[in-house]
Amino acid sequence: MNHNRIADNQFVQVTPFKTRRIVHTDKLMMAVWDFSDGPWSTPEPYHSHPHDQVVYLSEGGVDFFIEDESFRLGPGDMIAVPGNRPHTIRLLTPTVRLIDTWTPLREEFL
Amino acid sequence: MNHNRIADNQFVQVTPFKTRRIVHTDKLMMAVWDFSDGPWSTPEPYHSHPHDQVVYLSEGGVDFFIEDESFRLGPGDMIAVPGNRPHTIRLLTPTVRLIDTWTPLREEFL
Repeated sequence: MNHNRIADNQFVQVTPFKTRRIVHTDKLMMAVWDFSDGPWSTPEPYHSHPHDQVVYLSEGGVDFFIEDESFRLGPGDMIAVPGNRPHTIRLLTPTVRLIDTWTPLREEFL
Repeated sequence: MNHNRIADNQFVQVTPFKTRRIVHTDKLMMAVWDFSDGPWSTPEPYHSHPHDQVVYLSEGGVDFFIEDESFRLGPGDMIAVPGNRPHTIRLLTPTVRLIDTWTPLREEFL
């Protein structure tokens, strides 16, 4: 039994209410985000990046915004965000776990 | 409110005990696998593909095998599988939900 790849998780306490764990290959990155300061009255500011992204909502609820569209996500929902599309979220529940995946790697997270 | 991207989930009843939902961009694919026939006494046969893969275990437990290494995964664990590395799983619990992501797309799932 070997836990190296699991222990390779790169854990970061991003804010007092937001943590990130990262695992990746050379071309593919996954992050587990845990939020604990919901619900939010307003979304985060929009952001955009050239990386393609697909999201899985593991726990809680969010409104997911892509440009002028909005999608209400619950546990088990997925959503795809092609590169260079401005997007953001608003937490609907006290805690939320989001799984983000990107290609290529988000180098700023390494 | 618009649910198009969520409704784009491509649901397949793969076997009576295994379902798949897929969402993807042009370069990135995510699948939610739900298994209901665990635990298994033996792993599935190994398989391999050139696509990079990262896995998130959402519910249940599995042993994840990559070549001659084995990793025991529980809820919240991730594991990375570079392309062309033979890998397989063995279910440890009656039900399991695995989130698989790949780049490039697994065209055979479209």
